[in-house]
Amino acid sequence: MSKLTVLNPSGPVTGDNHALLPIGWKRGLDVSRPKNDTFLRALLRQPTEYTPVWLMRQAGRYLPEYCETRKRAGSFLQLCKSPAMACEVTLQPLARYDLDAAILFSDILTVPDAMGLGLYFAEGEGPRFERPLREEWEIRNLFAPDPHVELQYVMDAVAEIRRALDGSVPLIGFSGSPWTLACYMVEGGSSDDYRRVKSMAYSRPDLMHHILSVTADAVVKYLNAQIEAGAQAVMVFDSWGGVLSEAAYKEFSLPYLERVVSGLIRERDGERVPSIVFTKGGGLWLESIAGIGSDAVGLDWTMDIGRARQLVGDKVALQGNLDPNVLFAPPEVVAAETRKVIDAFGAHPGHVFNLGHGISQFTPPENVAVMVDTAHEHSRIVRAQG
Amino acid sequence: MSKLTVLNPSGPVTGDNHALLPIGWKRGLDVSRPKNDTFLRALLRQPTEYTPVWLMRQAGRYLPEYCETRKRAGSFLQLCKSPAMACEVTLQPLARYDLDAAILFSDILTVPDAMGLGLYFAEGEGPRFERPLREEWEIRNLFAPDPHVELQYVMDAVAEIRRALDGSVPLIGFSGSPWTLACYMVEGGSSDDYRRVKSMAYSRPDLMHHILSVTADAVVKYLNAQIEAGAQAVMVFDSWGGVLSEAAYKEFSLPYLERVVSGLIRERDGERVPSIVFTKGGGLWLESIAGIGSDAVGLDWTMDIGRARQLVGDKVALQGNLDPNVLFAPPEVVAAETRKVIDAFGAHPGHVFNLGHGISQFTPPENVAVMVDTAHEHSRIVRAQG
Repeated sequence: MSKLTVLNPSGPVTGDNHALLPIGWKRGLDVSRPKNDTFLRALLRQPTEYTPVWLMRQAGRYLPEYCETRKRAGSFLQLCKSPAMACEVTLQPLARYDLDAAILFSDILTVPDAMGLGLYFAEGEGPRFERPLREEWEIRNLFAPDPHVELQYVMDAVAEIRRALDGSVPLIGFSGSPWTLACYMVEGGSSDDYRRVKSMAYSRPDLMHHILSVTADAVVKYLNAQIEAGAQAVMVFDSWGGVLSEAAYKEFSLPYLERVVSGLIRERDGERVPSIVFTKGGGLWLESIAGIGSDAVGLDWTMDIGRARQLVGDKVALQGNLDPNVLFAPPEVVAAETRKVIDAFGAHPGHVFNLGHGISQFTPPENVAVMVDTAHEHSRIVRAQG
Repeated sequence: MSKLTVLNPSGPVTGDNHALLPIGWKRGLDVSRPKNDTFLRALLRQPTEYTPVWLMRQAGRYLPEYCETRKRAGSFLQLCKSPAMACEVTLQPLARYDLDAAILFSDILTVPDAMGLGLYFAEGEGPRFERPLREEWEIRNLFAPDPHVELQYVMDAVAEIRRALDGSVPLIGFSGSPWTLACYMVEGGSSDDYRRVKSMAYSRPDLMHHILSVTADAVVKYLNAQIEAGAQAVMVFDSWGGVLSEAAYKEFSLPYLERVVSGLIRERDGERVPSIVFTKGGGLWLESIAGIGSDAVGLDWTMDIGRARQLVGDKVALQGNLDPNVLFAPPEVVAAETRKVIDAFGAHPGHVFNLGHGISQFTPPENVAVMVDTAHEHSRIVRAQG
């Protein structure tokens, strides 16, 4: 299985188990190596030699090297706001695993922070805002921030990561969805029941739509600036869409996802920039989500991906969807469950293997290697048989 | 709208707005009044004059009279374990609202407590077990407790509530599902990610199945004892089934729900005892859930109930499914959203109106009256038109 190379961000990483990877592709930063665009092709439902893999939250606390960099940064927010350190942690999982994409290291709440809400992280409590949206005048004063002023640090990180990746694998940019950002902005942080934001949605839909509308504009600007800075695909995380009723989802989340997707730059330097939309808990509305114009839809682990593929047909690629908790099982179970996801999707084009949710901080790193390598190897076998 | 009568558990409650209710039916404890069996008939998909209503967690902290009784009890557990006080709080919501069923006041964790795990409630932290299941020998020692020994206090409460209800509305008994109880038993309390229990399910499925098997036996005995003590319908709460993947749900939760349902007493004193199964977050698996033999399936608020009815056809009745957060909106919105649920289900038999989840402790009690009365009144109109 994959080796556990210690990260060396200053130079290329050598590989020893790439017999099954496309000729000429090796991990690392060497400019002479051909680009691995498997991930981008899969998102566009073009044939690929194997199923590409990346992991939500792949640069994270389960990696000791990440914890070291974070300690050095002083805080999570300082880590996000330092382009050099954001670049360093973005590359860490690529040094360990045969991943087919990098994802910008950042937080989904950078946009509301740039709107002036004052993001901070209370120890052990997750993100909080100093000035959550509570009064009508605060809501009426909302503005879509200029990504090249308030969010320039993100664009600098994107550019620096692109340079460091040096054409090895594509870089994914991302944002929270309007509804998900609005949840945090109104609640003031995470919530058990989304009482405040749903109260507003049901009591003052006019105010809710105003927040969502301004936030959708902000997200479009933010993602397009990331694309201009070098992001080669973008993903919109609708982490809290699944807490809504079907009717409320179709009023408060889905239309704003659609607005974001339709505002995105579709091509950059002659290359398509694919988009992925992910509503956690959105399995019931999959067909609607597949109709808003994104190239791919992310799936959490609750829906069988084979059934999902039948439902969406040729409309979109699918990304997912192993339960992150499978990674706590012994390696042979990790491999077996990974194969099941690959088998369920089958030999069709348009699958990006991922977890169904961000990787847990408690994950044994060696099990990630088993999963990544199994997904690659088994998907080659399925294609050969398919 | 409904009056807000202060509870007077020692005598009948008078009604002033029952013009639309069946002749002869008034709330209260008077033995001469005919029984309101609308709820039972709806569960069996028999025609009813209106859609019956009850609320998950209807006896709860949103009612000041409940908070008073709980204070008097000293703790939540003492309240559960005192048949007289459990009876008192069970009746409280019926004194305020035109509800069509009472539900036993108890906790879903009484069964693992009776298995010796030591249930306690840490202030502000929810339920915890002193002795969660961690070691194989602990799991191998698990036993299905005799409901007439360790859980006699529950049976006493059921009998006392039946006497106090005096034939006015049916009494619902309930239990947690095997999977949901196992989650608490292995995790030791609530969990964000169900890491421990899923680790066990994936790593040691043999141990997991042993826990589920013993727990399913315990649940069958427990519910049948409730039926013998006087429960006229039973509900199984699978609160955490929705955190599983489709394959894991069909391995670790659904078969044990089926085993519970098939072990239940189906008739008592010549009357059918209907069963309801509720997997929160189970919308994606609705058709499978509808096939395990229960009379009704509970729906959380995420799935449109009209679509759910189309999917299940004539197989089962449906119970649900207003988002509890709607109750934070102004009364006219509460009424409009209630009508939408009634309209979505339509004029077919087999609907029990409920929330899609337990009522929030922060709910304004006056909005509950609006919802209950609107569901009754609007469902009569829909039937008249239908």
